[in-house]
Order: sequence, then structure tokens, then C-alpha cells
Amino acid sequence: MNSKVIINSNERVDDLHRNGYKLIQNPTQFCFGIDAVILSGFTRIKKGETVLDLGTGTGVIPILLEAKTEGKHFTGLEIQPQMVEMARRSVLLNGLEEKVEIVEGDIKNFADIFAHQTSSFSVITSNPPYTNQGGGLVNPTDSIAIARHELLCTLEDIVCATAKLLAVNGRFYMVHRPQRLVDIIALLRNYKVEPKRMRFVHSYAHKEPTLVLVEAIKGGKPLLKTEPPLVIYTNEGLYTEEIKNIYYN
Amino acid sequence: MNSKVIINSNERVDDLHRNGYKLIQNPTQFCFGIDAVILSGFTRIKKGETVLDLGTGTGVIPILLEAKTEGKHFTGLEIQPQMVEMARRSVLLNGLEEKVEIVEGDIKNFADIFAHQTSSFSVITSNPPYTNQGGGLVNPTDSIAIARHELLCTLEDIVCATAKLLAVNGRFYMVHRPQRLVDIIALLRNYKVEPKRMRFVHSYAHKEPTLVLVEAIKGGKPLLKTEPPLVIYTNEGLYTEEIKNIYYN
Repeated sequence: MNSKVIINSNERVDDLHRNGYKLIQNPTQFCFGIDAVILSGFTRIKKGETVLDLGTGTGVIPILLEAKTEGKHFTGLEIQPQMVEMARRSVLLNGLEEKVEIVEGDIKNFADIFAHQTSSFSVITSNPPYTNQGGGLVNPTDSIAIARHELLCTLEDIVCATAKLLAVNGRFYMVHRPQRLVDIIALLRNYKVEPKRMRFVHSYAHKEPTLVLVEAIKGGKPLLKTEPPLVIYTNEGLYTEEIKNIYYN
Repeated sequence: MNSKVIINSNERVDDLHRNGYKLIQNPTQFCFGIDAVILSGFTRIKKGETVLDLGTGTGVIPILLEAKTEGKHFTGLEIQPQMVEMARRSVLLNGLEEKVEIVEGDIKNFADIFAHQTSSFSVITSNPPYTNQGGGLVNPTDSIAIARHELLCTLEDIVCATAKLLAVNGRFYMVHRPQRLVDIIALLRNYKVEPKRMRFVHSYAHKEPTLVLVEAIKGGKPLLKTEPPLVIYTNEGLYTEEIKNIYYN
């Protein structure tokens, strides 16, 4: 661990339980949740692949994926300058500056930001804002609101950027709310990034799902595989073995 | 029960466990499965509503729905003459000729068959052929093949007829294979019949789903509710309480 990295007094350093990696977070801003961890468990990355995470926030997804896979390079795109600065310090803290790059920019400007990287990424991931009910209810300068509501980028912005930046047959991985599944599926098919694998996440086995994981392939043929439910808690309220494996193995 | 109805020697009469209703089936043709029963449990029909079942086969869905709900009238459309004839005898056998009508015809000709019934049905149901891999592999005159493969009607034919025949805010209920979910969702949205409620059916709680139930509303606003998994068997291989309720209560 790089001890020269500055940790501000309003920040905390969390253990990622992977390669001794740590992550800097500011509890007054957005902290990563189980969503990001589950997405990193659902994402498949092969040796030598390049990965782009859209709306990377603290950088938790590229840092976790670097730890878990044999991918060659990981890029995180983030619009909020204070998040970019903090994510970059997490990269330095873990000595990952050769493998993980945090880029500051707006997903809607993807064509300029990644001007020479059209159809180039092997894999794109995203844990985007879930709610499309922004408007007057939320503060658009609030960093938590930006992470949760579609204030600065919509689902379509993400799918549009993905369709252009992903290599042919490249894979897209997203976690989202099941309420938005019709939007997700209709948009992905319209942009010719075909949903191929899906998994619902349930707090308890007999409850409705709270999250959905989707794998889609650029130019893929129709045929969706829905996997068994991913259950977070046993009936006794403990993490299931599968969730423990995703967190710690 | 109407004892004057002829039962042919190659047919059997099954108990529907509802109002003493019976169903005539020919085991060399297509017999209804758990799919039809589960769909009838998922379908919501209010007092006085009119219901159309597309591809009704033996007529099991309109007959079950007549027994379970306070709907006013139930129409079943079926293309295969021998199935139509048998379904009509089941209607007579149960004395339902005032409530249930079996219409012979091709879904693709819905505009002619239901010329005066555009935007008129409160509810449309369908347990359609699941497989879009017809082609040379199956015998197109085989009545089981017609019920299972998209030989005589495609998913789009069903959605197109539904979009036209359903009343505004009318409800569509379908059971299908999860592998086709992207086709289902994309088609329904394209035809402005918005998927609003979905439920996956799993043989066992920890297995992948084998069926998916979808409720969609003509002109509905986006927002999908995914319900808890519907599990068919307990770990001991017995029907779950919920399945027993659907069959017998």
C-alpha cells in the first residue's frame, strides 16, 4: 500500500477483501454498495481484455475487477471532479496506476473522450443511476443524487455509448432495478447490444427481486439465459454462501 | 355435466378440479400442461369483463377462467379444426355454451374474424407456441408441433392481434419461455402494450426459471413489477402450497 497517498479527514478507507486493496470513500458523498460487489461477481473478464466502467464513482468496480480477473487494462469514466480525484487516489493507494485509469468526463461526450477507441473495449460495465424520476425532487448538485438519479446521464446515454465503444462481440454488464427492465431490454435491443444472460437478486429467496444483472453482447443473436435467483440472505438473515463467495473469494 | 356429448374412443376426459368441470383431450394430440394452469392463476379478471384466448387449443384456459372468475364472456380462437371441434364439445359437456365460445380461425386474420370487436376485449390471454425454431425439423401438419413451434403463428402475430383487439387499458396475460423474454418485451413495447407485471416460474427454488408469466397493459406507462419466484416443487419434490392453491383453490 502506498503510504504517501493523502486521506482527507472526512474520508474513510475500506478494505476490499481482495489482494489487500483499499478504497477511499467519503461518507457524505456516495459510498459503494452491495450492487457494485455483485456486479463485479457477475462480470466475466478474460485474460488480456480491456474494460471500461461508465460512471465509475469511487472507482470500486475497476479496482475490484483488476483484483479478480486477468484483464489487461481498466478505465473508469466519471463526471464528478471530486469523485475522480478521490478514485485516482485509491488507484495510487493500491499501486495500480499501470492498470487502472480514471478519466474525468461526461458519458454524453464519449465520442470526443474516446475518439480513437470506437469499437475497442472488450468489456463495458456500469452501475448507473437507477431512478428516472429526477426533476424537482432532488438537488442536482448533490453528489448522492447524481449517483442515484438520472440527472447527468440517462440509461439511453449509457447504452448509446456502450454500443459505440464496445468491440464487436464485446460484452456489457450492468446492474439495475427490475422496475426498469423493459427500458433496459428495449434500449439494448434497439442499439443492437443483445441481452444474453440475466440474473435477479433477491434479499430473501421468497421475496421479489431488488436488483437485476444483465449481460449483453454487441451484435449477439437473440436467446436469453435467465440464471437461478441470487439470494443475499438466508432465512436467518445471514449472508448466503454465494454472497460470501462473491465478497471474499 | 351434459351426458349427450360424444367422447371418442381415442379421447380422455380430465377433471379440472373447478366447479366439477371436465375437459376432453386427445393424448395423441396436444394435452394442456401446468403452463395453462399457472397462466390461469396469474390472470386477473374482474366482474363483467370479456376475455379472448389466442390459440386456445383444448379450450382449457377459457373454461378454467370461466370457473375461477366473474368474467362475463370468454372467447377462444383456435386454428386447428379438430381442436376446435373437441373444445366445443368440452364447452357443451360443462354446459357453458352461453359463456364460452370457441371460434375457428387464424390469428393472422384477426381483423376479419373480429371485424366489429377492435379495441373491445377487456383481457386477452395466450399460451402460445414457445419455439421459433420451426423450419425443417418439425412436421407442420402435426398438431403437437403446431402447438409447440411457431409454425402457424409467431409471437409478433399474437402481439399484433392483441394490440388491436384489446380495449384501451385492457390487460394481456401470457406464459412463455424465459429464453424469449427479450423478444417478448421488445415486441410488447413496440406495439404499445407495456409489460407491467412479471413472474418467473422455477421447478425448484434454486434452479433457473423454466417459464415466465407477463401481464401487459395497452397504453400503460413504463414501470415493471417483478414478483417473487413461483416455485413448483418443494425440495422433497412435492407441489408447493402455492401450486396446490392454483390447482385446487
